[in-house]
Amino acid sequence: MSSPSCPAATTLPLPNGALPTVGLGCWKLANPEAIVSKAIEKGWRHIDSACDYGNEVEVGKGIKKGLEAAGVKRSDLFVTSKLWNTYHRPEHVEAACRKTLADLGLDYLDLYLIHFPIPLKFVPFETRYPPEWTHDPSGENVMVPDPVSISETWSAMESLVEKGLVKDIGVANFNAALILELLKKSKIKPAVNQIELHPHLSQDRLVEFCKAKGIAVTGFSPLGSGSYIELGMDNGQGVGLLKDPAVLSIAAKHSKSPAQILLRWGVERGNAIIPKTSSEGRLEENINIFDFELDDKDMEEMAKLNRNMRYNDPGVFCKGMGGDYPIWD
Amino acid sequence: MSSPSCPAATTLPLPNGALPTVGLGCWKLANPEAIVSKAIEKGWRHIDSACDYGNEVEVGKGIKKGLEAAGVKRSDLFVTSKLWNTYHRPEHVEAACRKTLADLGLDYLDLYLIHFPIPLKFVPFETRYPPEWTHDPSGENVMVPDPVSISETWSAMESLVEKGLVKDIGVANFNAALILELLKKSKIKPAVNQIELHPHLSQDRLVEFCKAKGIAVTGFSPLGSGSYIELGMDNGQGVGLLKDPAVLSIAAKHSKSPAQILLRWGVERGNAIIPKTSSEGRLEENINIFDFELDDKDMEEMAKLNRNMRYNDPGVFCKGMGGDYPIWD
Repeated sequence: MSSPSCPAATTLPLPNGALPTVGLGCWKLANPEAIVSKAIEKGWRHIDSACDYGNEVEVGKGIKKGLEAAGVKRSDLFVTSKLWNTYHRPEHVEAACRKTLADLGLDYLDLYLIHFPIPLKFVPFETRYPPEWTHDPSGENVMVPDPVSISETWSAMESLVEKGLVKDIGVANFNAALILELLKKSKIKPAVNQIELHPHLSQDRLVEFCKAKGIAVTGFSPLGSGSYIELGMDNGQGVGLLKDPAVLSIAAKHSKSPAQILLRWGVERGNAIIPKTSSEGRLEENINIFDFELDDKDMEEMAKLNRNMRYNDPGVFCKGMGGDYPIWD
Repeated sequence: MSSPSCPAATTLPLPNGALPTVGLGCWKLANPEAIVSKAIEKGWRHIDSACDYGNEVEVGKGIKKGLEAAGVKRSDLFVTSKLWNTYHRPEHVEAACRKTLADLGLDYLDLYLIHFPIPLKFVPFETRYPPEWTHDPSGENVMVPDPVSISETWSAMESLVEKGLVKDIGVANFNAALILELLKKSKIKPAVNQIELHPHLSQDRLVEFCKAKGIAVTGFSPLGSGSYIELGMDNGQGVGLLKDPAVLSIAAKHSKSPAQILLRWGVERGNAIIPKTSSEGRLEENINIFDFELDDKDMEEMAKLNRNMRYNDPGVFCKGMGGDYPIWD
C-alpha cells in the first residue's frame, strides 16, 4: 500500500494534549544532559524518555537546563516516559511512574506508555534500577514472566491520569489484536501506540487501524537500523536506509539529506517520529523537515522499500535471555 | 526458516486425548452427511466441524452413519467443533456447546475451540442459527462488537471440560501475543491452536512458539487458496499451490499427487491438517500420505514458497461488514 503525499502536521491531537510530531528519542544517547538541553534550545518540544533507557536523571537535568536556557515553560514541552516490564502489577505502576517523575525532576508527564506487552517479575528499585530484561537476584540471568493481564496494568495506568501524574496514557509495541483486547475493558483508550516504523517496516495496516481507533502513532527507529548495529540486531542491513539509492535520489531531488527524507516520510504518513541523535548538527537537521514536501511519486518509491524488516523484535532478542515472546507472530 | 524432514506422526498427544493428524474439514462441504460417512468408512478418524459452517446436523448424521457402517466406536473418532463469535459471553458458552452437541448427535466433543478472537454481540439461537458475522435484528447488516475479554470466555470454556462436555479445549486464529495473554490467567492451557497453514503461509515462528508452549497446531486450508476462490478471497492466487512447479516436481519425484505433497508437508512439520473435500476419490487421496517421506531438499524447496499470503484474514473480510479486526497486524 502506498501512502499518498499529504501536508505534515507539526502536532497530533491527544485527548489531553498535543503531541509534537518530531521528538528526541533518548535511548542510547551518548550525552543525555547536553543533547537534551541543546535540543530544547534548538526548538525541539518533544522528549521521548523511558525508565529502561537508564538515563532519566541526566535527561531530567537536560530538560531543566534546556527550559531555562531557552526561556521555555514546562507546559510548552511534551515529555513521554514508559512503564517498564517489571512494574506491570497494579501495585507497582504508580511507584514506577513517581520514580520516573523524580528522576526527570518533573511533577507530571505528558504521556506515559506501557513499554512492552511483556510483564516480567517485579524487581525492587533498591535491588536494581533500571532492572532491564532479566531477573537476577541469585545470580541467575534469566527472564521471569509475571502473569499480569493487560487490563490489570491498564487500570492502574488510568489511575495515573485521574491522579494528575500523567496527562495521557498509551502503549508501545502493541499489535492490533492486543489493542482490541485492551479496548474491551478500558475506561480511557490509549492515546498513542509507539511502534517501530521506517520504510523497511511500514506497518501500513497497523497504522491505519490505530488511526481508525483514534490512537496516534509514534514511530521509533525512523532512520532504520542505526541503533541496532552495535547491538548486533540489524540483521545484516547495516545503515541500509540512509544509503538506499531510492532515498539518496529523493534526497538529491529535494536538496535534503537522506535522514530528512526518512523523517519527512514518517510525519507525512500522519505519524510522530522520535529520531535519536547524539550530534548537535543532526539536531538541527532532524527537525528541519517542514519546509518541503514529498510528492506522491516519492511516497510510491518509498513504499516499495517495505520489506517487513523488524529490528526490535522481542521474539528474537528475548530468546537469548530464556524468554519466548514472539509478540509480532 | 526451513523445516527439516522428520517422520510424520499419525496422532498428536493432547492433555485428554490424541489428535489424528489428518482430519476432514467440514467448511463448505457440498454433501456433508454422505462425505462424512464415507470418510469414516475409508478410515478417517478426525472430523473438524463448527457451528459457523451451518451443517452440524448433516455432519452429525454422517458421523452416526459412518460409525455404524464402519463398525467404529465413538471413542475411536475425534470430533472438533468451535464456539462462534456471538457466544463469547460466559453465560452463552455452555449453551452454544450443548447446541452443537445436540446438532451433531453427540454427548461430548473431543475438542472445542474459540473460533476467532473476535467477540460479537449475542444473537439468540431462535433469531438466527448460525448467526454468522453480522447482527441483523433490525435489518442492519453490520458487525457489532461485544467487549468480552479472552479470559472471560476461556474460563467458561474451562468449565466445559470440568462438566465433561468436551475433553480438550483450544483456540483458533490466535497469534502468539493473544496466546500469551490467554496463558496468563488460564487454569487449563489451550490444547490446540488452529490456524491457516500452507506453503504460501508457513507461519514458522508461530508454529514453533505453540510447540514450545505444548500447544498442538492444526493447519486449516492445507491445500492453499482453493476454498477462497469462489468467495473472492484468493487474492488472485487461483489454485496456485496445486499447480506450483516446485510442488509438481516434488509430486512427480515421489509419484504422488500435488495435494498429497502439500498435505504431507503439513504433517511432516509436526502439525495436524484438515483438508476439505466433497469428492470420494480425494478422500482416499488425502489420507494416503503416510507411505512416503519428503526429504530435506523437498522441505527446503517447499520453504521457498512462503510468501506470508493469508487468505482467511478478518482484517480484510470484516471491513465490508463494518468490522475492523486486523488480528494479524
